[in-house]
Amino acid sequence: MAKNIQSLERAAAMLRLLAGGERRLGLSDIASSLELAKGTAHGILRTLQAEGFVEQDPASGRYQLGAELLRLGNSYLDVHELRARALVWTDDLARSSGESVHLGVLHQQGVLIVHHVFRPDDSRQVLEVGAMQPLHSTALGKVLSAYDPVAHSEALEIEREAFTPRTVTALQAFEGELDLARARGWACDVEETWAGVAAVAAPIHDRRRMPVGAVAVTGAIERVCDAGKELRAELIAAVRDCARAVSRDLGAGRF
Amino acid sequence: MAKNIQSLERAAAMLRLLAGGERRLGLSDIASSLELAKGTAHGILRTLQAEGFVEQDPASGRYQLGAELLRLGNSYLDVHELRARALVWTDDLARSSGESVHLGVLHQQGVLIVHHVFRPDDSRQVLEVGAMQPLHSTALGKVLSAYDPVAHSEALEIEREAFTPRTVTALQAFEGELDLARARGWACDVEETWAGVAAVAAPIHDRRRMPVGAVAVTGAIERVCDAGKELRAELIAAVRDCARAVSRDLGAGRF
Repeated sequence: MAKNIQSLERAAAMLRLLAGGERRLGLSDIASSLELAKGTAHGILRTLQAEGFVEQDPASGRYQLGAELLRLGNSYLDVHELRARALVWTDDLARSSGESVHLGVLHQQGVLIVHHVFRPDDSRQVLEVGAMQPLHSTALGKVLSAYDPVAHSEALEIEREAFTPRTVTALQAFEGELDLARARGWACDVEETWAGVAAVAAPIHDRRRMPVGAVAVTGAIERVCDAGKELRAELIAAVRDCARAVSRDLGAGRF
Repeated sequence: MAKNIQSLERAAAMLRLLAGGERRLGLSDIASSLELAKGTAHGILRTLQAEGFVEQDPASGRYQLGAELLRLGNSYLDVHELRARALVWTDDLARSSGESVHLGVLHQQGVLIVHHVFRPDDSRQVLEVGAMQPLHSTALGKVLSAYDPVAHSEALEIEREAFTPRTVTALQAFEGELDLARARGWACDVEETWAGVAAVAAPIHDRRRMPVGAVAVTGAIERVCDAGKELRAELIAAVRDCARAVSRDLGAGRF
C-alpha cells in the first residue's frame, strides 16, 4: 500500500493538537508536542495560516484554529444525508417530548453530534453541533456500540472513564449494557455522564440496514424519568418512533 | 520568504472544491479541476480520508467532506472570544426584538456567521453558523466593509452580484452606502440580498478599537420596517446597544 503524505499527516496532527487541551499554542509548544524541528513546524503552520486553517494572535504570536474550519464544517453538514433526513423528525420529537434532541454518528472514538434541537422552552442553551460525547456512558454512544461493530471495538478499546458514580466502566458490565440495548432496541444513560441528566437513544439504519447513527432525547432526570428513576415509557416510544421514521426516510424499509 | 508546502496547499484546494458546487466528486473530477495527475490527487485524498477530512461513499466511490471538519469547526468556536462575549447580549437582542440575530466576521471575501440566535417563536429555522454572507449586499457585510479596511478592499474587488433589483452593485453607489454607514454608525439591507427580508447591523470593536465583527437583526420586512420601508428606530437602537455592550466586554471602552 502506498504511503500517506507526511506533511499532511503532520498538519492534521497540529489541528488536532489545537482542538484539544490548551487551544492556543506557541510555535515551540507545537513543535515539541509533535516532535518536529521548529523550522518544519513553522513551514506547516505558515501554510495552514495562509489557507485559513489556523490563525495567529497578533499580540502573543500564539496559534489557534482558523475560521476556514467553521466554513468547511458547515459545508460537511450540508451534504450529510442522515442529518437532512432527520431535520423534521427531530424537530417534532423535541416538540412532543419538550426536551432537547441530539443526532449523533460514530467519529473516531466517540459520538459526533451532527444535529441538536433545543429544548422548546425559553431557556438559554448552548449549541452542541460538532461536540463529541463518550461512547461508553451516553445513550447515543451505547446505541452505536451495540449496533455498529466498529463502534463496538472502539468502545472496548478506550479507557472507559467514570464521569459519575453511576458510569459503567468494567468490561463485563458494559457488555451487559450493550446486550440489554440490543434486546430492547434502545439504550439509556441515567446520570452516567452528567449528574442530574438522563437520556434515551435509539439506532437509525440505512437502506442496507447498517447502523448509521442514533437519535436521543436528553433532559433533567426529574422530567424524563419517573419516580423509580426509570425512563418514562412514552419518551422511549417517541425516540424509537423518530429513529424508525428517519430510517424509513433513508430507505431502511419498515421494521 | 520561504515557500509554503505544496501538498498542503493542494489538500486545502481539494477541501474548498468539495465545499462548493457539486460537493460529491469522483477522483477524475477532482484531479482535472485542480490540474493534478490522478495518482497525485489520489495520494492526497487517501491521506485526507485517513485523517477524517474527507469521506468516500462506498457505493459511488465519490468523495465528500469528512466529519473531522465539523469537530474542528466546533473547536474553533470554543476559543472564539468575540462569540463568547456576545452569547448573552445576542440572546437578549433576539428576545427584545423578537427577530433572529447573527454575529459575523470577515472571512476571505465574505461574512462568516459565527453565531446565530433563532427568532424566539416556534417556527422551524435552520442554523446558519458556518455559512457565508456576501460583503456588498448584507447589513453585516456593509458594516464590515465600512469599518474594516481589509473588508473594504475585498468588497471593492469582488464581483458585486445583483441578488435582487435593490442590490447596490455600482462602485460609486456602493461607496456611498459605506459613507452613510460610517456617518450613522450602522448599515441596513432592505431586500438587497433576499426578497422580503430586511436587516440592520452595527460594528463591534475590540480593546484596540479595531472592528472585529458585526451584529445584525434580520427579519421579514413587514415586521422590521415601518410603513415607509424604513428600519424601525427601536430596532436600530437595540442592535447598536448590543454592539456597544459586546465591544465594552471586549475591552473597547465606552463610546
